[in-house]
Amino acid sequence: MTDDIGGGSLLVAWQLKEKRILIVGGGEIASQRIQSTLVADPYITVLAPQSGLHPRTRHFIETRDDRITYHDRTFQGAGELEGMAMALTALDDNDLSREIVGMCRERRIPVNAADIPDLCDFYFGAQIRDGPLQIMISTNGNGPRMASLIKSRLQKGLSGQEGNAIVKVGQLRNKLKERAPGVGGDVGRQRMKWMTTLCNQWEMEDFTALDDITMDKLLSEGWDQGGRVPSPVDFGIRPRKDTIANPYSIPLLHSAVAFAAGVLATTLLFLYRGKK
Amino acid sequence: MTDDIGGGSLLVAWQLKEKRILIVGGGEIASQRIQSTLVADPYITVLAPQSGLHPRTRHFIETRDDRITYHDRTFQGAGELEGMAMALTALDDNDLSREIVGMCRERRIPVNAADIPDLCDFYFGAQIRDGPLQIMISTNGNGPRMASLIKSRLQKGLSGQEGNAIVKVGQLRNKLKERAPGVGGDVGRQRMKWMTTLCNQWEMEDFTALDDITMDKLLSEGWDQGGRVPSPVDFGIRPRKDTIANPYSIPLLHSAVAFAAGVLATTLLFLYRGKK
Repeated sequence: MTDDIGGGSLLVAWQLKEKRILIVGGGEIASQRIQSTLVADPYITVLAPQSGLHPRTRHFIETRDDRITYHDRTFQGAGELEGMAMALTALDDNDLSREIVGMCRERRIPVNAADIPDLCDFYFGAQIRDGPLQIMISTNGNGPRMASLIKSRLQKGLSGQEGNAIVKVGQLRNKLKERAPGVGGDVGRQRMKWMTTLCNQWEMEDFTALDDITMDKLLSEGWDQGGRVPSPVDFGIRPRKDTIANPYSIPLLHSAVAFAAGVLATTLLFLYRGKK
Repeated sequence: MTDDIGGGSLLVAWQLKEKRILIVGGGEIASQRIQSTLVADPYITVLAPQSGLHPRTRHFIETRDDRITYHDRTFQGAGELEGMAMALTALDDNDLSREIVGMCRERRIPVNAADIPDLCDFYFGAQIRDGPLQIMISTNGNGPRMASLIKSRLQKGLSGQEGNAIVKVGQLRNKLKERAPGVGGDVGRQRMKWMTTLCNQWEMEDFTALDDITMDKLLSEGWDQGGRVPSPVDFGIRPRKDTIANPYSIPLLHSAVAFAAGVLATTLLFLYRGKK
């Protein structure tokens, strides 16, 4: 594990809600840009001649006209950048890309130019999305193949229930705030302490079993009782005897069967010899 | 697994190399901001009265004066933002934070105000760093506790060798480019195909065993031989008989020992009975 400081990027979650962004180009990369940015709810303007549209770009334009404005033409000049919070070029024409980047710099518009890393204010990376959970993997320009291999490794470590668990914890926190209102101060600290203890003692998957009624019950029997943190076992969410999580049970069973087989085999052998 | 589009952020790897950024405040959050941004090699100006410096902020100021300029004073006005590529506030005074955000907006400077999510152009998240590999976990404002639990889960899926592997693959790619130079076109496609096949057939950990000499050997016996992709076994990197990766070996051993124990126990019993 290399833990050197420096030589990396600043990974951030950029906010684009209701902002306008420009995508110049309509090919495969442009379709990926549309897909990546739609996650953050911007209004997207796509500039590209019909002839160069990738089927997925066309699909997005047709199905997401609530978010995407499409113009069947090439980039006309600096006027296209008016009111844009971000610009992404996905063009084969590197000279035009460089020209657009220059215009963005003058106007202080954050810009990414596909295939010209030196000119980018920011890079994209491999992503995992599960509701409110977003994970980004960046290899800092060392190839998308490695990023996608790492992505597979990370996905193996996830149960697929994490997004759902985060939603439930958020709902529980809101219910707690209704019961014990107030910003900051003592009550804020106590709320945070209770939530933290709960998140440490419960498995993430336990939270996914909570619904409106069990959340209220948890608050009544926990928070209301002097800030006690009930166990998921008390709530019937986890069985009282945890049979699944015992890592020894299967090997022990194997060993027991093998021992019995040894006893049986030897007994038969002795009995057979005894008969002779 | 929730796979809804929308409602999220655009996760990006922001480039700050040799750019100037401003951090207003010197407390614990400010020290975290310094740590996060130093990864991306900016020049950092910290504005904060001595009296409010967190020990870790003080430590960064003292040890990283190659990157950090410190001013022992509060924020004086819009002049402080001159030439800044990014601004981060970490202040108890929300009114001042809001004022600074307003000035940044006018100047189109990307800004993050700690504790005022509505005013942020971007959020920070939990991070994993391993050399060229950076991973960010965002719960889109649903609590840093959940992000850090997810971080632990992801770390369990990683061997800790991924950063090193990415470095080695980068070195190998550079060597390949020296052997088969040229941008794009047929040779570019062939290089990419060979690297991709290699990355798919080798485990990531296999690459960490490569050094200068074995890389040259790999290219001579692989790429130079009509683009053949040698196995890590041929290179002595992995043993010919994979004993580690066989998930059955240990249970089989257990079962064999248990079987032998059964044989032994029964034999002893019969012998003992035979004597009587």
